[in-house]
Amino acid sequence: MELQFLGTGAGMPSKQRNTSALVVKLMQERGTFWLFDCGEATQHQMLHTTLKPRKLEKIFITHMHGDHIYGLPGLLGSRSFLDGKEPLTIYGPTGIQEWILTTLRLSKTYLQYKVNFVELNEGIIFEDEQFIVEAKLLHHVIPCFGFRVSQKPLPPQLLIEKALQLGVPKGPLLAQLKNGKDVLLENGQTVLSHDVTAQAEEGFSLAILGDTRFCQASIDLSRDVDIVIHEATFDAGTEDLAKPYGHSTITQAAQVAMESGAKHLIVQHISARFLPSHAEELRKQGLSVFPSITVAEDFAEFELKHNELKRINS
Amino acid sequence: MELQFLGTGAGMPSKQRNTSALVVKLMQERGTFWLFDCGEATQHQMLHTTLKPRKLEKIFITHMHGDHIYGLPGLLGSRSFLDGKEPLTIYGPTGIQEWILTTLRLSKTYLQYKVNFVELNEGIIFEDEQFIVEAKLLHHVIPCFGFRVSQKPLPPQLLIEKALQLGVPKGPLLAQLKNGKDVLLENGQTVLSHDVTAQAEEGFSLAILGDTRFCQASIDLSRDVDIVIHEATFDAGTEDLAKPYGHSTITQAAQVAMESGAKHLIVQHISARFLPSHAEELRKQGLSVFPSITVAEDFAEFELKHNELKRINS
Repeated sequence: MELQFLGTGAGMPSKQRNTSALVVKLMQERGTFWLFDCGEATQHQMLHTTLKPRKLEKIFITHMHGDHIYGLPGLLGSRSFLDGKEPLTIYGPTGIQEWILTTLRLSKTYLQYKVNFVELNEGIIFEDEQFIVEAKLLHHVIPCFGFRVSQKPLPPQLLIEKALQLGVPKGPLLAQLKNGKDVLLENGQTVLSHDVTAQAEEGFSLAILGDTRFCQASIDLSRDVDIVIHEATFDAGTEDLAKPYGHSTITQAAQVAMESGAKHLIVQHISARFLPSHAEELRKQGLSVFPSITVAEDFAEFELKHNELKRINS
Repeated sequence: MELQFLGTGAGMPSKQRNTSALVVKLMQERGTFWLFDCGEATQHQMLHTTLKPRKLEKIFITHMHGDHIYGLPGLLGSRSFLDGKEPLTIYGPTGIQEWILTTLRLSKTYLQYKVNFVELNEGIIFEDEQFIVEAKLLHHVIPCFGFRVSQKPLPPQLLIEKALQLGVPKGPLLAQLKNGKDVLLENGQTVLSHDVTAQAEEGFSLAILGDTRFCQASIDLSRDVDIVIHEATFDAGTEDLAKPYGHSTITQAAQVAMESGAKHLIVQHISARFLPSHAEELRKQGLSVFPSITVAEDFAEFELKHNELKRINS
């Protein structure tokens, strides 16, 4: 899993930061990537990455403000044009389906793949053998969701060399051991599954939060996650300004990370008032509350390695 | 009047060319600019120019395909955010009003200015004391319009020094002379308006054509214009390929310019198949038919000076 930020700005595009879009790359896990929000020109940003729109499997929309959705129709159209044929699922607030279907109809856009819509309620919105995604309402000026993405524990791995050394013959007995069953060999010896399997690795967990005031829901959704991704539209000390706009300060983002027990915090949705040179100052403001803070910029890419958040590109 | 191309690509954005948008700058004429088509990320392109969204007065949409309209909602929102308060008029095919109003409603976008919609029929769609804009249906795969923008002759200018020399006193007589009336002075001498005014300058004329096959309507709309702006999605010799897609080759664009008696041709809507290095080759293909051809690229800016088309930036 890698994270790549395609749009880290707030409200409007600037030369430095595009409107919101965050990619969760799951190429190793499932050969696809997921997109969280899709501001205008998200497809343009992708042109400068290795991302192929046909590998896009799911889009999660936090809320219906334009800086989080206006890139959807163009991306959907280009995905079709670029030979995307696999179905795509869009999870978003009420209204997302009406908007997309109206837009496709009026712009005479015919997609060569199926789009499934899931209009959001709180709770588990997706689950398969690999992942659970949960949605929770945050506190913005319009309904806005946060998402918690949890990878399930990876299956235990069979230590095949060790099993062979213990005399297990190639064949179905190996599969039994892998699936947790102890086996009796022909020589009367018992081989314990536990001895020839590596313990299941714990999966990663992310909380990807939309625009929001400081709120308990953010903390609850982010409980003990590896990475919480929170907005920071305002800087420290401007809490009174942030609140009526339904936004947070960098300090409040750090507070959410701290209270939730998250390991790392990445902030985005940075106002164009803050130049790139201010990012370090913002980070320092948050550091007084929480120790692992990164201020994302457009195209920044990260991976988790042994609980460490690592920057991939620079 | 200056022209600035913000998007010269076809169908999808590429690194070199964005989707369609063309600015007609009328800062000297009326302190505003007009926009023809508005592909996704047109507002992003504007960030790299001197254009201020609040100076945008009119938007003309040739047709409803996404690569010509998906930048509209973001631009409208940003114009409001950037303190645009003057009303804005959008001229476009049936469906443009439904799409914009649905989009603004569902994205909870409230503009601090009024948007007027004019859904297009053929004929004169706008006229004031300075300009006439005429629309005509072209031949694309969905209804698509071309626009002819004609500046009316500029009012004659009073040669004030000459009038004073002939003994005309400062005051209302000067205004009469400017307005074409001859005047009788107190000394019994008659001063002819014709002698103290410079002849009205002819206005400029542009034909800005949407996506289209080669068609008579393009020629009729472009009759004797200073500049015809035509699509060239395909290169010479691929007319059979272009036609079912409702598009034209560079040769057909040149043919329209030639048959209409236009002075200059600028082509846009260039497929991403053609790299920037192919632009000169495309131009040469058209030159065999029409002598003044320019292949536009994004951000190219032009002015008309004494019937000559001049590149402003490079």
